[in-house]
Amino acid sequence: MVKQKATNVTWHEGDITAEHRAKLLGHKGATLWFTGLSGSGKSTVAVELEGRLHEMGILSYRLDGDNVRLGINKNLGFSAEDRTENIRRVGEVAKLFADTGVIALSSFISPYTADRDQVRALHDAAGMDFIEVFVDCSLAAAEERDPKGLYKKARAGEIKNFTGIDDPYEAPSNPEVHLHSDRQTLDEEVEEILTVLRKRGIIPA
Amino acid sequence: MVKQKATNVTWHEGDITAEHRAKLLGHKGATLWFTGLSGSGKSTVAVELEGRLHEMGILSYRLDGDNVRLGINKNLGFSAEDRTENIRRVGEVAKLFADTGVIALSSFISPYTADRDQVRALHDAAGMDFIEVFVDCSLAAAEERDPKGLYKKARAGEIKNFTGIDDPYEAPSNPEVHLHSDRQTLDEEVEEILTVLRKRGIIPA
Repeated sequence: MVKQKATNVTWHEGDITAEHRAKLLGHKGATLWFTGLSGSGKSTVAVELEGRLHEMGILSYRLDGDNVRLGINKNLGFSAEDRTENIRRVGEVAKLFADTGVIALSSFISPYTADRDQVRALHDAAGMDFIEVFVDCSLAAAEERDPKGLYKKARAGEIKNFTGIDDPYEAPSNPEVHLHSDRQTLDEEVEEILTVLRKRGIIPA
Repeated sequence: MVKQKATNVTWHEGDITAEHRAKLLGHKGATLWFTGLSGSGKSTVAVELEGRLHEMGILSYRLDGDNVRLGINKNLGFSAEDRTENIRRVGEVAKLFADTGVIALSSFISPYTADRDQVRALHDAAGMDFIEVFVDCSLAAAEERDPKGLYKKARAGEIKNFTGIDDPYEAPSNPEVHLHSDRQTLDEEVEEILTVLRKRGIIPA
């Protein structure tokens, strides 16, 4: 399944561009921006998609709390200001990945429209693909799942400024992909994303 | 030249790891950390190496002032504190690239040993390859080149805290690669780096 990779890669004494790298990899880079409530299933879809892309010979990389909040953003907390800076930095990193030819799978609650739109603008200005994936799920369903026990703590007042409880989630008004994780199967969700990637010419049809 | 890529990439319902990605790409990720005076030729070597790696079908990406200082680090200046945070963030980004399977070519003066060692420690802790490339060049030679006219401005007092003039450059004591850009050819420099990459098993021998 990896066979579509270009074999005619040559470099003629100049800077290597995103086009060169896309030729090398056999696909384009892009940023997929998963947004949704805690427990909505952002990471679950991202992990499944990563596996499917890998099977197709496509290079992707997940950016999430585990490798970003503990790394480049370890000096940031959860105030509104820090959340904004968190998303700004992740957006910049995702853009570098997209430029490299990697499909960046960014998975953060990213509750504020203005922050997400800033990342979108960053990509637009550079002519890079930004695909907002709204992982839609009712608060009730997310809270019932509560995979990390965070809603329980937020309801008990042990966590402050928790999105959906005492901090707002501003739903995307016009996302490129709108998933409904409380009524779609994981396969359906992944297929919906792959369809958009194919239509946009990011991955081979 | 791209033919060594793996064709037996399969995913068995689990997280995709750095090993999976290395198999897909046909090489490992790593961070090459170019350090040296302004005008020492860091970017020149990085650009040449990038082209050579690309010819070999190897995915690399340059991190430098152009795409980092204007992006993820645009809220940082040149005070000692900001320089340290600049290098810390670049180090974290390079580590993510290395984890992805990309050969990150980081090109910053990075004058302080402590900052570079922090990035090295970050990679060591994650079991990732960190290769410090000291682009050694006498101050006299760098100042004579002065490709961006920065030494002239620093001597005239128009730029403060300029490395080599009124701010120290702490040379690496034990770099993995020690280039001498004032007496080696570009080809010799690139070959020296490629030899280390091959010896370490990062790229095919």
